[in-house]
Amino acid sequence: MNHEEAIKALGDCRTRIDAVDLEILKLLNDRTSIVEEIGRIKREARLPIYEPKREDEVFRNVTENNPGPLPQEALKRVFERIIDEMRVVQRLRIEEESKGTTDAGSHAGRRLGGADTESH
Amino acid sequence: MNHEEAIKALGDCRTRIDAVDLEILKLLNDRTSIVEEIGRIKREARLPIYEPKREDEVFRNVTENNPGPLPQEALKRVFERIIDEMRVVQRLRIEEESKGTTDAGSHAGRRLGGADTESH
Repeated sequence: MNHEEAIKALGDCRTRIDAVDLEILKLLNDRTSIVEEIGRIKREARLPIYEPKREDEVFRNVTENNPGPLPQEALKRVFERIIDEMRVVQRLRIEEESKGTTDAGSHAGRRLGGADTESH
Repeated sequence: MNHEEAIKALGDCRTRIDAVDLEILKLLNDRTSIVEEIGRIKREARLPIYEPKREDEVFRNVTENNPGPLPQEALKRVFERIIDEMRVVQRLRIEEESKGTTDAGSHAGRRLGGADTESH
């Protein structure tokens, strides 16, 4: 492979990565929506928010079904980060509810403006 | 929603999350395969392995296309983790190549055994 061919092949790979990333982005947002739904159900039914056993299940689901090439430890760290960020989102929603900002209007606003929300 | 209905609704949400996670898992492995391909191309063409500008592009791709509800900062941290783990995988492959374990046989073995590889 000469230099020009390599540059072209790299470009193709990057186009594919960008497409994969947009699919991951979609799934992360789908997951966040479901986590928000879980939060609402739990608050309504006064069920405990944090369930460490469920987190173990989440890790088991992905690690037991991982064919590679992504190493197990790497996969676990990625999902640790995902779960951690979802926990932050749940906390944000609880804070919003306790401030009484959960009417239909602010909910729609939250959806549209979600991307700008800080989550530290 | 009574307690029983809440438990059922939670179960449904979790089934959906597990399905989303398996899709994310598939995409993470697809992404890892492409990153490995990039590594091979770069080594063959003796191109620089680390390109911080490309990382900026990756972040821009996802943050500019994020409709929420996942907050931008959370999304960025998830992709920081993904990129970081992919970098570890690239480093592993370079080490393997320098040890001369890149014949077809070990390649197949690596694919199948990828899930057990440590990546610290």
